[in-house]
Amino acid sequence: MPAPGPDRTAYVADWIEIRTLTAVSGASFDACDCDGYAATFTADGEMWLDAERLSAGRDELAKLPAKPRGFVHVTTDPIIELDGCTATQRCTLLLYRRSRDGSKVSLFSTGRYEDRLVRTDDGWRFARRHGWLDINTTAVTGS
Amino acid sequence: MPAPGPDRTAYVADWIEIRTLTAVSGASFDACDCDGYAATFTADGEMWLDAERLSAGRDELAKLPAKPRGFVHVTTDPIIELDGCTATQRCTLLLYRRSRDGSKVSLFSTGRYEDRLVRTDDGWRFARRHGWLDINTTAVTGS
Amino acid sequence: MPAPGPDRTAYVADWIEIRTLTAVSGASFDACDCDGYAATFTADGEMWLDAERLSAGRDELAKLPAKPRGFVHVTTDPIIELDGCTATQRCTLLLYRRSRDGSKVSLFSTGRYEDRLVRTDDGWRFARRHGWLDINTTAVTGS
Repeated sequence: MPAPGPDRTAYVADWIEIRTLTAVSGASFDACDCDGYAATFTADGEMWLDAERLSAGRDELAKLPAKPRGFVHVTTDPIIELDGCTATQRCTLLLYRRSRDGSKVSLFSTGRYEDRLVRTDDGWRFARRHGWLDINTTAVTGS
Repeated sequence: MPAPGPDRTAYVADWIEIRTLTAVSGASFDACDCDGYAATFTADGEMWLDAERLSAGRDELAKLPAKPRGFVHVTTDPIIELDGCTATQRCTLLLYRRSRDGSKVSLFSTGRYEDRLVRTDDGWRFARRHGWLDINTTAVTGS
Repeated sequence: MPAPGPDRTAYVADWIEIRTLTAVSGASFDACDCDGYAATFTADGEMWLDAERLSAGRDELAKLPAKPRGFVHVTTDPIIELDGCTATQRCTLLLYRRSRDGSKVSLFSTGRYEDRLVRTDDGWRFARRHGWLDINTTAVTGS
């Protein structure tokens, strides 16, 4: 069980910053804000889904939300461990899909994120996000 | 990306208070605790849904949960920005509906809250909540 | 409305520890990590579901996740009150079920946890968790 360690004040501030970064990343993706999404990663950040690396570096990352698929990314139940200027996050993912005509939203899958983060001059950023879906599919990447 | 600013200790305490207020507001609505729900707003607080202002002031706000509709309000992924005695919150909304016979709960819609808050003598309160649903409907307000 | 009280720094650290404990407990259950799940409770901890006590003590608690049922436990919107070395948590529960063939995940029910916690030498632990589901069922316990 991760524990805050001696400096509890720094831990809670970093915890909230990492949760905010996670929220900004998901909201940027869902709004097709490509640059905003890419900016939540480090310059050489990577996004993985199941066994596949989807993107490496901000140029590739910025293309992920570009295809409008109407997803809604929800994260809950984070477990965050800090080690100086690096951190890991494990959280639950709920991935929803909006129908094209706006009449319906449905659960696509539950899943998990396993994230590695680094503290940069601009704050915490994802060095690597690894999403795992509970359903088996390659349809999500649209390839 | 919002950052805690110089006083990180105050920021995290306010962040948790605003999250608790959000939880109390949703739970009060779902339990048809009309006064408890209204008390999460300022005296002249407003509730908006999509393009419509549903209520202004606690007397009107207290009528919103009064019609039992069996909703469950869930919020996740907050992005909270503080500026002295005011704050804004953006969070994701998951709105569920319980069937009348208690046999089923289903997702009504995903959405978002855009909230404006003020720090009062009794703690943080909503000055204005604006809910946006991902599905197009006027059925939610029951009008 | 619960308020942090005079020592806001201690409150926020405890709040995050309790949220982390909650995440670890759910993730352990879902991964059928029986000992990990039992370790989130005190030695004589209890788990209740609706009107029934499912388990008392870690030996019994460790049997709960043992039957693979493919659940995903999600918690949101916590309301945490601290009183020295004890605490209560009320949070929303979203319970999902994965189909056996991995093709689908669906919402089983929304609900609530009402938790009592104690601060031990190893950190916060559940003395008693009480889960309430919004649908009426005895199927969850598999009995």
